[in-house]
Amino acid sequence: MTNSNPWVLDPDRALPAGSTVRPLAREIYQHISGLPIVSMHGHVEAELFLRNELFGNPAEMLIVPDHYLVRMLVSQGYRHSELGVPSKDGTAVEMDPRAIWRRFCQNWKLFRGTPTRFWLEHELAVIFGATMLPSEENADALYDQLQAALATDAFRPLSILERFNVEILATTDAAAADLAAHHKLAQLPGAHKILPTFRPDSLLHVGNANWCEEINTLSQASGIEVVDYGTFLDALRQRRADFIAAGARATDHGHLSADTTPLPAAESARIFAAALQGTVTAQEAEAFSCSMIFEMARMSSEDGLVMQFHPGVLRNHNAAILGAHGPDTGLDIPVAMEFTRALRPLLDEFGMNPNFRFIVFTTDETVYSRELAPLAGAYPAMKLGAPWWFLDSPQQMLRFRESAVETAGFYNTSGFVDDTRALASIPARHDLSRRIDAGYLARLVAEGRMNLDEGIETAIDLTYNIPLQSYAARP
Amino acid sequence: MTNSNPWVLDPDRALPAGSTVRPLAREIYQHISGLPIVSMHGHVEAELFLRNELFGNPAEMLIVPDHYLVRMLVSQGYRHSELGVPSKDGTAVEMDPRAIWRRFCQNWKLFRGTPTRFWLEHELAVIFGATMLPSEENADALYDQLQAALATDAFRPLSILERFNVEILATTDAAAADLAAHHKLAQLPGAHKILPTFRPDSLLHVGNANWCEEINTLSQASGIEVVDYGTFLDALRQRRADFIAAGARATDHGHLSADTTPLPAAESARIFAAALQGTVTAQEAEAFSCSMIFEMARMSSEDGLVMQFHPGVLRNHNAAILGAHGPDTGLDIPVAMEFTRALRPLLDEFGMNPNFRFIVFTTDETVYSRELAPLAGAYPAMKLGAPWWFLDSPQQMLRFRESAVETAGFYNTSGFVDDTRALASIPARHDLSRRIDAGYLARLVAEGRMNLDEGIETAIDLTYNIPLQSYAARP
Amino acid sequence: MTNSNPWVLDPDRALPAGSTVRPLAREIYQHISGLPIVSMHGHVEAELFLRNELFGNPAEMLIVPDHYLVRMLVSQGYRHSELGVPSKDGTAVEMDPRAIWRRFCQNWKLFRGTPTRFWLEHELAVIFGATMLPSEENADALYDQLQAALATDAFRPLSILERFNVEILATTDAAAADLAAHHKLAQLPGAHKILPTFRPDSLLHVGNANWCEEINTLSQASGIEVVDYGTFLDALRQRRADFIAAGARATDHGHLSADTTPLPAAESARIFAAALQGTVTAQEAEAFSCSMIFEMARMSSEDGLVMQFHPGVLRNHNAAILGAHGPDTGLDIPVAMEFTRALRPLLDEFGMNPNFRFIVFTTDETVYSRELAPLAGAYPAMKLGAPWWFLDSPQQMLRFRESAVETAGFYNTSGFVDDTRALASIPARHDLSRRIDAGYLARLVAEGRMNLDEGIETAIDLTYNIPLQSYAARP
Repeated sequence: MTNSNPWVLDPDRALPAGSTVRPLAREIYQHISGLPIVSMHGHVEAELFLRNELFGNPAEMLIVPDHYLVRMLVSQGYRHSELGVPSKDGTAVEMDPRAIWRRFCQNWKLFRGTPTRFWLEHELAVIFGATMLPSEENADALYDQLQAALATDAFRPLSILERFNVEILATTDAAAADLAAHHKLAQLPGAHKILPTFRPDSLLHVGNANWCEEINTLSQASGIEVVDYGTFLDALRQRRADFIAAGARATDHGHLSADTTPLPAAESARIFAAALQGTVTAQEAEAFSCSMIFEMARMSSEDGLVMQFHPGVLRNHNAAILGAHGPDTGLDIPVAMEFTRALRPLLDEFGMNPNFRFIVFTTDETVYSRELAPLAGAYPAMKLGAPWWFLDSPQQMLRFRESAVETAGFYNTSGFVDDTRALASIPARHDLSRRIDAGYLARLVAEGRMNLDEGIETAIDLTYNIPLQSYAARP
Repeated sequence: MTNSNPWVLDPDRALPAGSTVRPLAREIYQHISGLPIVSMHGHVEAELFLRNELFGNPAEMLIVPDHYLVRMLVSQGYRHSELGVPSKDGTAVEMDPRAIWRRFCQNWKLFRGTPTRFWLEHELAVIFGATMLPSEENADALYDQLQAALATDAFRPLSILERFNVEILATTDAAAADLAAHHKLAQLPGAHKILPTFRPDSLLHVGNANWCEEINTLSQASGIEVVDYGTFLDALRQRRADFIAAGARATDHGHLSADTTPLPAAESARIFAAALQGTVTAQEAEAFSCSMIFEMARMSSEDGLVMQFHPGVLRNHNAAILGAHGPDTGLDIPVAMEFTRALRPLLDEFGMNPNFRFIVFTTDETVYSRELAPLAGAYPAMKLGAPWWFLDSPQQMLRFRESAVETAGFYNTSGFVDDTRALASIPARHDLSRRIDAGYLARLVAEGRMNLDEGIETAIDLTYNIPLQSYAARP
Repeated sequence: MTNSNPWVLDPDRALPAGSTVRPLAREIYQHISGLPIVSMHGHVEAELFLRNELFGNPAEMLIVPDHYLVRMLVSQGYRHSELGVPSKDGTAVEMDPRAIWRRFCQNWKLFRGTPTRFWLEHELAVIFGATMLPSEENADALYDQLQAALATDAFRPLSILERFNVEILATTDAAAADLAAHHKLAQLPGAHKILPTFRPDSLLHVGNANWCEEINTLSQASGIEVVDYGTFLDALRQRRADFIAAGARATDHGHLSADTTPLPAAESARIFAAALQGTVTAQEAEAFSCSMIFEMARMSSEDGLVMQFHPGVLRNHNAAILGAHGPDTGLDIPVAMEFTRALRPLLDEFGMNPNFRFIVFTTDETVYSRELAPLAGAYPAMKLGAPWWFLDSPQQMLRFRESAVETAGFYNTSGFVDDTRALASIPARHDLSRRIDAGYLARLVAEGRMNLDEGIETAIDLTYNIPLQSYAARP
């Protein structure tokens, strides 16, 4: 049994079935499908756009950097090295992109029912104009078709942004990043904006092996010599100001725990000093990192950067793979989260502050109805981030709406984020999100819970106005 | 884009879409829409009915006392004081009900997709006969329309009960309440019954600041001078008997934890004595309150009062709002719950006792399929309470059925409770619950899992027979 | 209101409603409804087939051994003894099967909306050819109809396997079982295979009262005198080899916790010695049992037996019922689970090992999307087991697909297991699972997420190929 070719992308894909709801969903979707993309959280690097070079081949563009895809093939027995994932320890790695591509095409059926399937179909048809789905038989023909497309200027990174109407794209940048690429990109003509995001994680974990080195980099980048807790805070403030000057709208924090308990300043200073001397304990380091989330909230309430918090993923679950291939290879696994008590110190202090904006993400769907929607539906500072990572799939995005909206409403959510390292997947991911929202709103219309005009207006708000407003620059 | 006016309430609202299921749902709903309302758990006060006065204005009736509504407006930047929520600390509060009403109408779109929207639509159309939905433009016209209605006798509290066929309504009353209003109401002619519910929470938390004062009130109300643990239990028994004499069917317990571990009597006595002397520790107080849940189960198995237990909400999450406006202003947030181990002491002792009836509620939906349905589906004493508070919304009520029924069946659930402080929302809330149950049963019929006669019979049982039986007075 | 008779089983039962999805579901289902049953995990005993005797009466076959059914009747006030559940303590037990049957028929409505209802309808119609549903009125007539059928050879255990095309059936056997019945069954002609499964739970809990006795049995069965930890491991290895020789494909482990932390060998040896002397602590016993899960994974990676792990059920929640009637009477209750950290030691060591196969089950549905699908979607050794016990119902099986497939894909799941003690329910349970999968796949087809050919191929894989491959014997 093979996939039928020539293949045509279903224009109604991911819209709900049913003669009542489908037409409503289609009508709502038509009002939002062409809206500009507002991509306020992602991991494509600014340098990619500055270089603006052609991609080398389909495997390099679509397979190797996509940990969703690599993970699935590994789970069925392929080694990371067979998929071209770079080695850290000298393991031999597949160098032939066509061989990597064939392995993927032979296993196309593994992606049935997953969002990767949706994204790839969209990318193949809409971005590349491909006329066949991957299969063992057509692997080489499809490779050639894609390779030919990749050689054209339409596939340069900036061209992709333009073709798909990306109005704003936020990158994620280390707190000590020099932002040179952002400054240069800001000089280029064109409607889109590429903005940095301030991510200080590595500076806040004082027990990490390379932390002292990170601090040195911070000193250099900020021009403030960090010698104690006070100068550390000063340097962070300086860098936040630098990011704001480069157009940043937000910070980003990816801790394991959601705890936000502040330490007394003297205790923070003591732990910081111990860390500089290399004598900090694991417990002290953990307490310090939690306290720093509280301090980041304080700084956000002062300088207006939106604070993004997405805790709850245990990184690098497997030591051997970490050693052989490093992080971000599909072996990060979520853990159960608690937010009601964990966020209380932060929200008690800053949650009613009109200058503070706080967006919380989770990969634990159980907290939507129990904790995050009640909190976002009560505190003016807090909004509920889009379903993220493992949860940005059709059913999960639908469940997010079903779980969160009844308590938080639509207007305490902050809009879709693609959170991707794969440039070509950005339009596909936003399209899928728009389809799911259209379907959810269509159901509310069909059930008499709002009228169609409201459904359309809400869809436009969710797609465009809400993310722009949630991440708006403060005057 | 504005709401179309004149506006007509959709007769099929909140029924599932689809040409197969919708007609079945409509037929089932038609069999239950007119059944009397059995409201066995709520927070409207008996005095309201005894006074039976007209409401002053729409804001006072519909906005200010409704923490769902206040919470949502606060989450979008309004201060509690701007919404007329009374101040505890001298903060100036908006006194103009029309100004409060306008703020609400301007923000009508925030309630899209929430149950508040459904309830308000129902109240406006069915109770008030309003012909427009709120909007910035019509705020004053709608206010005037509602104000005119409120001046008529049809809007007196007892008239509302009669108009909407409320057969029984249970209030919630402190254990030391004098029950005078209930005794007087019992003398009035009319079909409806207003019954008290025994809620001893404040007496069981021996570490609370005002606990000694509460004990004094208990002594006075019971006629038993509480001087030690033994007289404390005697006074509680006396008050339970007083409540039964006043028609009470149930007790109500709202602890944070679900732990029901009993203490040895001597240890309870020792902690009680320490509490009287003001030397109790937080840990002792917590252990005592858990043990008292066990003791309340023992008393229920003796005197036949149904025991309602709804743990799991962290009250007063924000200290500043508590200080400025007190409790019940929308800042109570659920926490994750554990019941399997926590209820084991209580169920091990009383769960097979035919004289004990125990209804458990949760705001953590994850425990339905994992813990509460298996427990209610095994222990004869236990029934699973309706989805409550954050969970009494369309999707959540549906998910409750989808999660609990397959293990517990329909007949180990105890029927809908409105749990509301807002009198006008009672018929709206019961109507929404009936529609969701009709939709769920229609789906089971459409999928061949029961026949239509069974669907109708089950709907009638869920709506009327089951709550009456679950809370029936014991002979 | 009674059930309409004569009654006909709905051919489309448990397929989704709707004019788009229903026909697709029906077409997919038609491709799998007749496939052989692969039953790789269950609790019917091999001796039942070896004896191959007629069942005595309907109550003995359908009611008494089915703890789902007993549990539901107990939850509504029947005592276990009234339902014929054997007594351990001399409690008088109902001996009249017709009286037991009548109690069940009178309470048929309790099973509305539960999978028991589906299974029983299927068994009555398909296995027995009954023409009426149970009711108070027809209890005796139905009893007579079933009793007449039970007297025929078509109802002998092996005939039932043959009639319903059971290709393989795995039993569950104590690690010290003599496997005589399996060896004799292997000599019989016929297409089906009845295979043992190695379950060592009772040997791994060194603190249990009868553990020393269990160890003696192990010594005898293995021919290795167990005198210390080393000989204990040797005896377990010997018995695993014996099971493999008898056709076993898998082991089975039912601990309460999912912890897999290994102990140093010397510490395991010390605890084992203490256990032999009766001086082991509860904490030591717990640590030992967790460490043994790690050791079982090591042995599986050596001998190729598939390791099935289904933790998370608190057994014997009620002491009085355990005392009166023993275990397995419907009073086992799930608890919340954690897998990400708990499985990390095991997966870090063996998860990438191509010789290791590990299938994980849960009764806590919250871990599907958060933990189990991400783990199964990353580690080649791990597959996600079917929804089990409380979760093998229509909505829950659907939610399993909705929660797990988008991250793990279909091909990291291991196929349906019936896990039943009730022989007659095996075809009914597999049929229900096939219908739910057909419905889920039909929805994906209707939403353009795969084409119909893929839907059919996936359904066949889920039903037949995947369970065979997941439990395939290693060469």
